[in-house]
Amino acid sequence: MTTVGIVMGSDSDWPVMRLAAEALAEFGVAFEADVVSAHRMPEEMIAYGAQAAGRGLKVIIAGAGGAAHLPGMLASVTPLPVIGVPVPLKYLDGMDSLLSIVQMPAGVPVATVAVGGARNAGLLAVRILAAADESLRAKMEEFQVALKEQAHAKGAKLRAEAGRLGG
Amino acid sequence: MTTVGIVMGSDSDWPVMRLAAEALAEFGVAFEADVVSAHRMPEEMIAYGAQAAGRGLKVIIAGAGGAAHLPGMLASVTPLPVIGVPVPLKYLDGMDSLLSIVQMPAGVPVATVAVGGARNAGLLAVRILAAADESLRAKMEEFQVALKEQAHAKGAKLRAEAGRLGG
Amino acid sequence: MTTVGIVMGSDSDWPVMRLAAEALAEFGVAFEADVVSAHRMPEEMIAYGAQAAGRGLKVIIAGAGGAAHLPGMLASVTPLPVIGVPVPLKYLDGMDSLLSIVQMPAGVPVATVAVGGARNAGLLAVRILAAADESLRAKMEEFQVALKEQAHAKGAKLRAEAGRLGG
Amino acid sequence: MTTVGIVMGSDSDWPVMRLAAEALAEFGVAFEADVVSAHRMPEEMIAYGAQAAGRGLKVIIAGAGGAAHLPGMLASVTPLPVIGVPVPLKYLDGMDSLLSIVQMPAGVPVATVAVGGARNAGLLAVRILAAADESLRAKMEEFQVALKEQAHAKGAKLRAEAGRLGG
Amino acid sequence: MTTVGIVMGSDSDWPVMRLAAEALAEFGVAFEADVVSAHRMPEEMIAYGAQAAGRGLKVIIAGAGGAAHLPGMLASVTPLPVIGVPVPLKYLDGMDSLLSIVQMPAGVPVATVAVGGARNAGLLAVRILAAADESLRAKMEEFQVALKEQAHAKGAKLRAEAGRLGG
Amino acid sequence: MTTVGIVMGSDSDWPVMRLAAEALAEFGVAFEADVVSAHRMPEEMIAYGAQAAGRGLKVIIAGAGGAAHLPGMLASVTPLPVIGVPVPLKYLDGMDSLLSIVQMPAGVPVATVAVGGARNAGLLAVRILAAADESLRAKMEEFQVALKEQAHAKGAKLRAEAGRLGG
Amino acid sequence: MTTVGIVMGSDSDWPVMRLAAEALAEFGVAFEADVVSAHRMPEEMIAYGAQAAGRGLKVIIAGAGGAAHLPGMLASVTPLPVIGVPVPLKYLDGMDSLLSIVQMPAGVPVATVAVGGARNAGLLAVRILAAADESLRAKMEEFQVALKEQAHAKGAKLRAEAGRLGG
Amino acid sequence: MTTVGIVMGSDSDWPVMRLAAEALAEFGVAFEADVVSAHRMPEEMIAYGAQAAGRGLKVIIAGAGGAAHLPGMLASVTPLPVIGVPVPLKYLDGMDSLLSIVQMPAGVPVATVAVGGARNAGLLAVRILAAADESLRAKMEEFQVALKEQAHAKGAKLRAEAGRLGG
Repeated sequence: MTTVGIVMGSDSDWPVMRLAAEALAEFGVAFEADVVSAHRMPEEMIAYGAQAAGRGLKVIIAGAGGAAHLPGMLASVTPLPVIGVPVPLKYLDGMDSLLSIVQMPAGVPVATVAVGGARNAGLLAVRILAAADESLRAKMEEFQVALKEQAHAKGAKLRAEAGRLGG
Repeated sequence: MTTVGIVMGSDSDWPVMRLAAEALAEFGVAFEADVVSAHRMPEEMIAYGAQAAGRGLKVIIAGAGGAAHLPGMLASVTPLPVIGVPVPLKYLDGMDSLLSIVQMPAGVPVATVAVGGARNAGLLAVRILAAADESLRAKMEEFQVALKEQAHAKGAKLRAEAGRLGG
Repeated sequence: MTTVGIVMGSDSDWPVMRLAAEALAEFGVAFEADVVSAHRMPEEMIAYGAQAAGRGLKVIIAGAGGAAHLPGMLASVTPLPVIGVPVPLKYLDGMDSLLSIVQMPAGVPVATVAVGGARNAGLLAVRILAAADESLRAKMEEFQVALKEQAHAKGAKLRAEAGRLGG
Repeated sequence: MTTVGIVMGSDSDWPVMRLAAEALAEFGVAFEADVVSAHRMPEEMIAYGAQAAGRGLKVIIAGAGGAAHLPGMLASVTPLPVIGVPVPLKYLDGMDSLLSIVQMPAGVPVATVAVGGARNAGLLAVRILAAADESLRAKMEEFQVALKEQAHAKGAKLRAEAGRLGG
Repeated sequence: MTTVGIVMGSDSDWPVMRLAAEALAEFGVAFEADVVSAHRMPEEMIAYGAQAAGRGLKVIIAGAGGAAHLPGMLASVTPLPVIGVPVPLKYLDGMDSLLSIVQMPAGVPVATVAVGGARNAGLLAVRILAAADESLRAKMEEFQVALKEQAHAKGAKLRAEAGRLGG
Repeated sequence: MTTVGIVMGSDSDWPVMRLAAEALAEFGVAFEADVVSAHRMPEEMIAYGAQAAGRGLKVIIAGAGGAAHLPGMLASVTPLPVIGVPVPLKYLDGMDSLLSIVQMPAGVPVATVAVGGARNAGLLAVRILAAADESLRAKMEEFQVALKEQAHAKGAKLRAEAGRLGG
Repeated sequence: MTTVGIVMGSDSDWPVMRLAAEALAEFGVAFEADVVSAHRMPEEMIAYGAQAAGRGLKVIIAGAGGAAHLPGMLASVTPLPVIGVPVPLKYLDGMDSLLSIVQMPAGVPVATVAVGGARNAGLLAVRILAAADESLRAKMEEFQVALKEQAHAKGAKLRAEAGRLGG
Repeated sequence: MTTVGIVMGSDSDWPVMRLAAEALAEFGVAFEADVVSAHRMPEEMIAYGAQAAGRGLKVIIAGAGGAAHLPGMLASVTPLPVIGVPVPLKYLDGMDSLLSIVQMPAGVPVATVAVGGARNAGLLAVRILAAADESLRAKMEEFQVALKEQAHAKGAKLRAEAGRLGG
């Protein structure tokens, strides 16, 4: 059953947002992905948010850039947790996207991740789902162990390389 | 006939936004003012924008702070020109409000004024209305003459004051 | 009849500013485009602004970068609505251009669009003209419907692509 | 049963962070609050995070200012979702706190809310818990209806006030 | 003979700009001070700049805040050196004023000083005049010696105070 | 024997910089404090730096605000470690001070601490001295234990206070 | 006779700073150019500044990047006007360079130009020298006329190009 | 004996951080380099810091990017001086890394160098070690003389090049 909806304002955001999808796929979490533009199809955007919980979604991941209104608008019409991904545009390095997403007024939260941090949006969705799913939490713990092992492996390689400098 | 709608996310924005209302009143332009929150009443907000042109409004002025989504969302559901006023919050000096309003994607413009610049939002609405109203344009030209005269008067006062410094 | 003047400080701004011209052309709005530099030909710049309304222009679109003074200076000598386009320079990502244009003092508004957002400047001019032109407003509404349809089409393509990820 | 842990680096963060506690209390969600400083008691901080899931916590809310390391460090030792609150310090308006919390590397997400946005941290925790709790979700939906009604009431008051301006 | 013109967009800038006047007075340099608003009296502003050299002025000091166009516009119509003082407004700490003044395009320089740094504008004018005035240069050198002596005196006081801390 | 020199551009920096002195006093490290202005007494500043090592100083702490040149200039004339404290001025929240101090070119390092972070400058000096002083290192370790105990005490107080909220 | 000294911290700044030299050469102003590093040769830097006036220099142009101390340090040891050019480094787009140069304390001014704006530094030096040199001022006025004519020529070209768009 | 530990969150930081290693190697200071990730191996990171002094390290150099927690976390578990290197990521030019490292709370200092300034981190470590090592200090003084000579050589080259411009 699809539990996570990944939406973005344009398909040009997909190269960033697919990292969220890939993270979910790694954890076996079923997701849907769609273009839901706050500015180009506002009524459908409202409808998407308003119907998400009823359709069985548990988490929405929304990516947007510039005056990034999609995550906050969805959060205003759903009781589900909404994760916002600031997509960087050509100028301003995503600072506009970040502030447009994170600075929500009291009452309507958006769980914001780093500029371009769509992979973490996927992982945050997994953590949220895992709050009520022991096996998913176990997978997240395994994932964290694997992160550590990768870091160890990189350390070994680096020690060798640094040794050649005379370290 | 009411031709300008002034809306804001909360009545706490009124101390800033009333400057727009006062500017319109100075020019005899009829306006309405209301709380239309993108985040707390999204469907009504959409409805407000969608019906604005049909109700005879010619311009919408929208003020919002932080993740300021109201001006851009209204612009997405109306063909009318929308003027956005970045309202400064307690932190960040309105930079978040400004970027959230001005950095709209191609297709949906918002005419943005300065941080806290609601008076200019009112004056911009007058200029827009005056594009099709000779008498209103004449008033705007008189207003510009008056601005100049006030500046002259200030200059006279300043020259006197500076003279005392030995200038 | 030419109703929109598109001006810029240098022909090097044209690659950005031509997006405004193209938007106007899409709507059948007649425009003129010219180099009117606030810093290199200030008297002519003042004259351009002062004569604009008398020549029948209804809206001025002005693009400038860095210490971007053209939009604000034109706004000070015309009663017409002036739309400012912050053109990004090599450094600072257009933040200097944006602040130089949008932070106008009370009395002289400039309708500012996004950094590099010349297309939206053109569309905003159309909205302003449409305030007094029913057929132009109808075209804007059609344009908004077309935006929505394009977004829908992108969504269909994205859903297919995401499906291959296992979503 | 306590399901949310609210932690902060110092009791001086409490005036900001108590807004998270109050939001949870409004929803009947049991929480604990404590000082857990990443920099002054790092081992205990690690232990707090490592034991949180085992103790039955479902969500951690962590507030910190300046070089704000607490949310990210907790996220690195727990599989639970961690919500980060950027607490503003005397200088820089919380921009340092925000970037220190939100810009986490791929692998370890922190759900970041607005500068000083502790109330939204509480509400986000409720949404996360509600993903697996129908009655809590119903409460969140009621809360959203109440937000809307408050906005309506503010609108009525504002319309009256604006009417006195001649609007 | 008056050799320095101090101008500003509004008399509200005088509390900042009088520091320039005071510095000039300390050096016995005759100056004039006036309100010359780029936005409220653009033609007079152009005239002021165009006539400045002919009237015998050697340097212009111009202060402005926000979208601060006065220094750059004056520089475009005079061959004299123009010193720009970024006056801070209520928001943004003068960053907008600074960028609007300093980021001038190639061809038209403005000698920019610190945010609120009007005293240094006066001192810079003295240095410029002193380039062709030996006695003025000697005064500047005396002034620099006095600065040093004041710093020495402060050091003596501080050493005493620090001594009480056990230093 | 005096091992740390605390210098600043003006006695107006003392309210910030005395925190460095107090930290050193807590650890029994002898220090001197003085006004050494890069801009008002440059030759003496150079002399101060050039003679510091020969006089037995081991570390220099330098505070400055705005275009903060003192720490970097001292670092260029001494082989000692120089710690820079960005002192915030009235505008820009110390961001100018921070960048002026920390962004030193390759070859001449300055150990920079937080905006206004003079206490940490003192503590960093202690750590540097402790690298060759076992008893001082032991004191630093005790200090770190005390920090932890203070944090624990604050936690106890906070738990009680939060308990009253229903947590 | 050489009247302008162009100095920079490293020869890597020359590609930016040579624009200042070229501007001076266009006006027939004799200049010298040298590497004078505040951080790598502080005593020589002080000597350069202290001797500049005595050697007949009238203006110093100093370029530096990052923690850019050269312009301000020179200004502290000479009574001559010093023009600072913020050279952008690889990161931060020259914002660090700009703030390090422009934010000088009261008493020691630096005439700051735009990030990378070395050409304007040269032109500003010409204006300063022209304050006491009628023929140089006449050349500057001719230069300004030429700027205007170039802008006109660009306008003609642009009008033709825009005409092809249907404008 | 190894006296400096160079650690970083990932081997992707090595191209920046190796400049620290190279600087140490130039001075004959033995070092170790390793991947020690605050977020991927927090317990080992804590252990690394806690054991560093006991293992004979005198200084730790830690590089990290984005939400850069490694330097500050290490500083919280060691009494040694910790030098932080802000590693720039793809977006934001290292401003996030800088603020995350430098803005440490009172009690736990990190000696921060420039964005990407790993070479200076190495040189700062040498200065710290030299505080108790006369021969190392002598080497640092020779190094500073060599810097000066290189600057002189660059000056000679530049003077020749500038001469061809007519300077």
